[in-house]
Amino acid sequence: MTKELKEECGVFGIYAPEGSDVAGDIYYGLVALQHRGQESAGIAVSDIRGEKGNVSIKKGMGLVNEVFSEEDIRLLKGNIGVGHVRYSTTGGSVPENAQPISMNYIKGSLSLVHNGNLVNADELKNKQMYRGQAHYTSSDSEVLAYEIISERLNTGSIEEAVKGASKKIKGGYAVIVMSPRKLVAFRDPLGIKPLVLGRRDGTYIVASESAAIKSVGGTLIRDIEPGEILTITEKGVENDRSGCGGKEAHCVFEYIYFARPDSVIDGIPVREARFHAGKALAMADEVKADVVCGVPDSGLIAAEGYANASGLPLSFVFHKNSYVGRSFIKPTDKERQTAVHMKLNVNSSAVYGKKVVLIDDSIVRGTTMRQIITMLREAGAAEVHVRISSPPFLYPCYYGTDVASSGQLIAAEHSNDEVRKEIGADSLAYLRIEDFRMMTGELPLCTACFSNDYPL
Amino acid sequence: MTKELKEECGVFGIYAPEGSDVAGDIYYGLVALQHRGQESAGIAVSDIRGEKGNVSIKKGMGLVNEVFSEEDIRLLKGNIGVGHVRYSTTGGSVPENAQPISMNYIKGSLSLVHNGNLVNADELKNKQMYRGQAHYTSSDSEVLAYEIISERLNTGSIEEAVKGASKKIKGGYAVIVMSPRKLVAFRDPLGIKPLVLGRRDGTYIVASESAAIKSVGGTLIRDIEPGEILTITEKGVENDRSGCGGKEAHCVFEYIYFARPDSVIDGIPVREARFHAGKALAMADEVKADVVCGVPDSGLIAAEGYANASGLPLSFVFHKNSYVGRSFIKPTDKERQTAVHMKLNVNSSAVYGKKVVLIDDSIVRGTTMRQIITMLREAGAAEVHVRISSPPFLYPCYYGTDVASSGQLIAAEHSNDEVRKEIGADSLAYLRIEDFRMMTGELPLCTACFSNDYPL
Amino acid sequence: MTKELKEECGVFGIYAPEGSDVAGDIYYGLVALQHRGQESAGIAVSDIRGEKGNVSIKKGMGLVNEVFSEEDIRLLKGNIGVGHVRYSTTGGSVPENAQPISMNYIKGSLSLVHNGNLVNADELKNKQMYRGQAHYTSSDSEVLAYEIISERLNTGSIEEAVKGASKKIKGGYAVIVMSPRKLVAFRDPLGIKPLVLGRRDGTYIVASESAAIKSVGGTLIRDIEPGEILTITEKGVENDRSGCGGKEAHCVFEYIYFARPDSVIDGIPVREARFHAGKALAMADEVKADVVCGVPDSGLIAAEGYANASGLPLSFVFHKNSYVGRSFIKPTDKERQTAVHMKLNVNSSAVYGKKVVLIDDSIVRGTTMRQIITMLREAGAAEVHVRISSPPFLYPCYYGTDVASSGQLIAAEHSNDEVRKEIGADSLAYLRIEDFRMMTGELPLCTACFSNDYPL
Amino acid sequence: MTKELKEECGVFGIYAPEGSDVAGDIYYGLVALQHRGQESAGIAVSDIRGEKGNVSIKKGMGLVNEVFSEEDIRLLKGNIGVGHVRYSTTGGSVPENAQPISMNYIKGSLSLVHNGNLVNADELKNKQMYRGQAHYTSSDSEVLAYEIISERLNTGSIEEAVKGASKKIKGGYAVIVMSPRKLVAFRDPLGIKPLVLGRRDGTYIVASESAAIKSVGGTLIRDIEPGEILTITEKGVENDRSGCGGKEAHCVFEYIYFARPDSVIDGIPVREARFHAGKALAMADEVKADVVCGVPDSGLIAAEGYANASGLPLSFVFHKNSYVGRSFIKPTDKERQTAVHMKLNVNSSAVYGKKVVLIDDSIVRGTTMRQIITMLREAGAAEVHVRISSPPFLYPCYYGTDVASSGQLIAAEHSNDEVRKEIGADSLAYLRIEDFRMMTGELPLCTACFSNDYPL
Repeated sequence: MTKELKEECGVFGIYAPEGSDVAGDIYYGLVALQHRGQESAGIAVSDIRGEKGNVSIKKGMGLVNEVFSEEDIRLLKGNIGVGHVRYSTTGGSVPENAQPISMNYIKGSLSLVHNGNLVNADELKNKQMYRGQAHYTSSDSEVLAYEIISERLNTGSIEEAVKGASKKIKGGYAVIVMSPRKLVAFRDPLGIKPLVLGRRDGTYIVASESAAIKSVGGTLIRDIEPGEILTITEKGVENDRSGCGGKEAHCVFEYIYFARPDSVIDGIPVREARFHAGKALAMADEVKADVVCGVPDSGLIAAEGYANASGLPLSFVFHKNSYVGRSFIKPTDKERQTAVHMKLNVNSSAVYGKKVVLIDDSIVRGTTMRQIITMLREAGAAEVHVRISSPPFLYPCYYGTDVASSGQLIAAEHSNDEVRKEIGADSLAYLRIEDFRMMTGELPLCTACFSNDYPL
Repeated sequence: MTKELKEECGVFGIYAPEGSDVAGDIYYGLVALQHRGQESAGIAVSDIRGEKGNVSIKKGMGLVNEVFSEEDIRLLKGNIGVGHVRYSTTGGSVPENAQPISMNYIKGSLSLVHNGNLVNADELKNKQMYRGQAHYTSSDSEVLAYEIISERLNTGSIEEAVKGASKKIKGGYAVIVMSPRKLVAFRDPLGIKPLVLGRRDGTYIVASESAAIKSVGGTLIRDIEPGEILTITEKGVENDRSGCGGKEAHCVFEYIYFARPDSVIDGIPVREARFHAGKALAMADEVKADVVCGVPDSGLIAAEGYANASGLPLSFVFHKNSYVGRSFIKPTDKERQTAVHMKLNVNSSAVYGKKVVLIDDSIVRGTTMRQIITMLREAGAAEVHVRISSPPFLYPCYYGTDVASSGQLIAAEHSNDEVRKEIGADSLAYLRIEDFRMMTGELPLCTACFSNDYPL
Repeated sequence: MTKELKEECGVFGIYAPEGSDVAGDIYYGLVALQHRGQESAGIAVSDIRGEKGNVSIKKGMGLVNEVFSEEDIRLLKGNIGVGHVRYSTTGGSVPENAQPISMNYIKGSLSLVHNGNLVNADELKNKQMYRGQAHYTSSDSEVLAYEIISERLNTGSIEEAVKGASKKIKGGYAVIVMSPRKLVAFRDPLGIKPLVLGRRDGTYIVASESAAIKSVGGTLIRDIEPGEILTITEKGVENDRSGCGGKEAHCVFEYIYFARPDSVIDGIPVREARFHAGKALAMADEVKADVVCGVPDSGLIAAEGYANASGLPLSFVFHKNSYVGRSFIKPTDKERQTAVHMKLNVNSSAVYGKKVVLIDDSIVRGTTMRQIITMLREAGAAEVHVRISSPPFLYPCYYGTDVASSGQLIAAEHSNDEVRKEIGADSLAYLRIEDFRMMTGELPLCTACFSNDYPL
Repeated sequence: MTKELKEECGVFGIYAPEGSDVAGDIYYGLVALQHRGQESAGIAVSDIRGEKGNVSIKKGMGLVNEVFSEEDIRLLKGNIGVGHVRYSTTGGSVPENAQPISMNYIKGSLSLVHNGNLVNADELKNKQMYRGQAHYTSSDSEVLAYEIISERLNTGSIEEAVKGASKKIKGGYAVIVMSPRKLVAFRDPLGIKPLVLGRRDGTYIVASESAAIKSVGGTLIRDIEPGEILTITEKGVENDRSGCGGKEAHCVFEYIYFARPDSVIDGIPVREARFHAGKALAMADEVKADVVCGVPDSGLIAAEGYANASGLPLSFVFHKNSYVGRSFIKPTDKERQTAVHMKLNVNSSAVYGKKVVLIDDSIVRGTTMRQIITMLREAGAAEVHVRISSPPFLYPCYYGTDVASSGQLIAAEHSNDEVRKEIGADSLAYLRIEDFRMMTGELPLCTACFSNDYPL
């Protein structure tokens, strides 16, 4: 599904002993989370020895390694910090919307990073403006920050303020707040968005995915629970579980596409989920084929699962040119035809004369899939059978996934056979919603985009 | 062998009908050849309607998409052109050594791109200097250009001058020369360096690899023969085979590592060669294992061959972070330990408790391999058996491959078992020189770096 | 006084008929005001046809022509706009403090540019924070914006909100506020900071200096009065003079140093003021000299006045190298001695053997003056008599001029004769406070930095 | 004559004791010569301890402070060096034509900087090409370098090779050549282009103007003589005067416009020459006026001379905005009318109601002068009398001054009165050729562009 679905955001927070500098760790953590957002990146650090939060911040448009130079990292001094990579869901692709958001309020500085979407942001923002609170951005993360600040005026601590604010906000979110001497991490009560806690000696780390903790040499402790508010101070970790224990609905797309395969989310290794999705596809399949392959990189592990269950050989059919990146000059319409092979090309000898099972994780508009199948046929593939490791994408997401409106979803407008013809496949089959159980077991899922069953 | 061996250079030439602009095609061709050199890139184009060669040139340090903007490409007007990506073999990593080299001489402009190495460059350069020919660079490509220019003073055409020069130069080379109205491509008599001819309607294309021809919508016609001089003019293609027919010695490392798997070189698909190297490894193997995997990206296809021959399941064991690129801030020594996982991380669930066969294409210093094996063990692998899809690397290359002196080659200094211990593997085996026959059949090879049998 | 005193800020606002684009005019206006601030520059524009203020904004660190490209200007679409050049007085030299400040509040967008300093900013900011208003910057301009927003919640229009806010703020200021459909300009009741109104056909312009109006082809209408609130809408200009008519105290340093000589401020041409300061110096002088010269560029016009009154010839004694700019590599300490002549050099033939009267506008630390006098003596000057076209600088400024604390002012710590010896002059004399009358006639001045007589 | 005439080039060479680094001195020297060329800049240094000339070089398009960073200067290690600022006369404005030219030839490296123009470059280049010498640039400086290299093959030293080459080249030139262990400076036999020798302790400096020597703390020793070849080695300075003693013809435009007023060229202070040109204009004048002013910066010193001889007061009539630089966004045609005042504005109070004498150094096309006169009249000037401190510009220059062909010279096509009307002046007068004697005494001049009397 080569990049037709946009990931949203990745968050990273760290609390090291006094005197340490954490900006380097945040940099590596954000690079490890870069797949979750390539539009902007930012880091804010604070030195606990400073008064009322002496925050240093740097953010900008682009990839982590485009935004930060070595000197930038060196100048970001402090032992507490938060970082963010962003793909815009609300608020537009403008520099002002880059995170962390960092404000000064009556108790000092507050810096915030946020993955997710508030469904009642407009309503809350209107109330805030009637209180005279001006907005510098159009993001709902700023709305969230103001809710916390407003609560803080009438509560005794930042964690109580977060608790008060969390009762007012609705949606899917994973948030890390840095106050002058504390790091507060919290997750929506349904657990839609992932958030994990890790440790490296005396340093605590909070991140969207466990792979980011590992990237800085840390060890995963556990997932932060849906509804939990976790506070890290000099004394260690405290938490408030009064918001926990309700209905849960974890976003299934983290397992299908968003998360890295080497991450473990809510107890389940992402690679295992994808591998078993592939197995489920094979077990429901009756096609006679010669070889199995996955679309790089999103379909590879499901292809491995399919090969495992079907007994067919798994093959590296595609050569991906890793130098075709963001700054690559796009071919003109005239050249488009000739430039299909730039990013992905077929190793012809692997498919010539063969019946091919081709695995990908989803079909959004179908354009890319049609081009890939054309390439396989040009390389001599006898048949191309497409298997998708998720059900058809039918309904919009309100919790932070940038899926186009139904009108742009090919499966919402066309029958299965129409889609098959459109992409030029010999057969087309999807994972069934009931197969999710093979992927994630008993874990309660949000499958609204497939099932129209919204948890909120 | 993650980038311990440096590729050398990629060349691309194109001759389109009068009135066309070829800079865009060269750009895409060079991106397709980017794996052959990331140090500098350059394009020179000439308009056949201009007098005596009105050459526009742009070159610079960095990747193709860093060197060229859309405006650069638009400003490079002309229907004939050459392009180059470079990794320095001789001449040092300085802007002056970027190619194409473009000079004006008595017959107008001459632009040249060159992959390879002249073994008698110093001797020729000395003679040139005694003729008063000054050198602006320290590269042997400039020596080659001067030989052609000198010959041109006493011959009737550029192709005759090339013929004269080719009798004086020794080494491995694939060269494209652009004169005001012609494109001349030639290859060393042994065929050490690859060079292919392709076509797209009335446009002729010459490139280091067939994948570059495909990337611009062209079709591979044939390899340029060792010793052949091929001249493209308005009238079409002519050639001189008087230098052909001698002993051949094609560089085996093109098949093992340099070339893209989707290229076909001297009639053999590179993917097939790698797949059969993996098969050969498996057929000589007696290890009992649970799973096969390859080091991304250089060991993947050999792993597929190994799985195919051994019947063991092939698995995607590694997650490669594609955002860890050139501009990534390197971890400090202190952080190095914690940052091993940045570029490559293990999907633990794929190897936990398993005996793993790990395939890579070569071992140079062994450092990276040791780190990878450590990661596999940390992820719970029970055993790690390393299989290398080439023989031990023992002797230096004089024909253009940037291999360190023998002292840096771990296999040259240590026994097989010492290397195994150094990298921490349970067993270690290499491809045997006699197995090359499984890869490339009857094709005569240069295997000097393994066998000490130098063709020149 | 070569740049030892920092200017503060320049503001520019423009209201053109619907459908026009004003960003280009703002660009030229800011270049004309660049002498007032070189640290950052910014432009915000709004299209009156947009709903509730569709503001486009671009700001950054550096000179106007460094911050804005042609494409930036083209993308800034709108017929109303404000611009700013800044030298930091409060808030530190950081990107966040660049102006315009642009916020969204309950009535839509509000953009603000500000020259000056609020003396009660801390007190107001504290109150704002107790209302839950978070601050993104450390500048007092944000405090001012929040006062206006807070007033707007309880008033019927932006101009009434400005009126309410202006009753709460204290200090010297010239401000332009852009709301979705209006431009509101106002000036502190004492008239410390300058602000003028101009016109070009149906377009109204407000700026710190009349030279900026002229630079865009406009004509000066009049000064905005101290305490006046001027509102520009589609219907034209309205104003509220209820705050006018009190005591006035115009900053005398605008005439001595800050403003361009071709500007007219509060009815007095700046050049005339400087010319007459030079005349006053000559009329009080008894020195016998051969030639008069001014330190470029700040002392030139006073030198002309001195020459006029004394009858001595005026000479271009100094060659200023206009290529020694911001990005010039500063000489190391070792080279400093030899590099004194880089920026300013003496035309030796103009002073050899002569008694020289040397005019400058002020002495802050005295370092530059000492170097200049050394140069004159090396060039053969027989005597050097320094005349300063302002009184000794003795007291700090609280209204927005970046003067160092008294400890750094050479005149505050040393007697006149000590200063003369320190700079190496044969004689030294200053303008007397009573001479200001020759410069500016009856205009009421703020002379606190010379007289300790603070108007607030 | 605000920049309608282009300067050409500035050269700088330095020879310091072994172990010193000279790149910093060259940087400052080039900044001091920046007025002679703003198109490109370059520095080459060599360490005498290196073998056969280990040259480090950096050059690029733009101003000296745009081309060189602090790190660039630090990395340029060596005790001998040459530098260059360029305005293109031949060869086009392309990066390849930036100097120094640096080549390797049979005796090691040769780096060359050149101010001037060879009139027989095409003929020499053709011969070189027949010898097989390829050209990388289109500049005549490369032709010169090849002549020296060719001579060196048959002579015993670099200075002898220079001597041989200097017999073959024709034109105006000042050249510095750096060979591995020597610096050779030479000047054309007529002395058209300036070149001076200076010293700072044990370090020797050669430069286009004495102001560059002073900028690095050195002292002017003497002019290099027309036709002299001066060689600096470890042992000191040697010279060959066998080419001296012929007819001389020093370019009068160095005194009128090119050189800095604080330079001394061929024994005459440039400021003195300009001052006396102004005096000569006044002595020949009968106009009744109130005030004298010069167009900044080129007319200022002549205005001082005019004021001195006429007794009229000298006034700073113009305010020049020093922030309107190279990267300034040019006004569109529509805005041009309104943007005349951006770079230069009139201090109205200085000219209102007055009869003004306006001095400039030349009129090329007349466009700028017409705009300036319009501004003066808008500011209320009663009369504007233009006086030009050089004769009418009638003939082209072949020795290195970038003057347009006669067709573009307003004075070549129109009568004095037509020009006066065209620029809108009340009267117009020029310096007479016979007045040059007041400027430069007995010094033999090249006045071909005024007199059609070409020395070659």
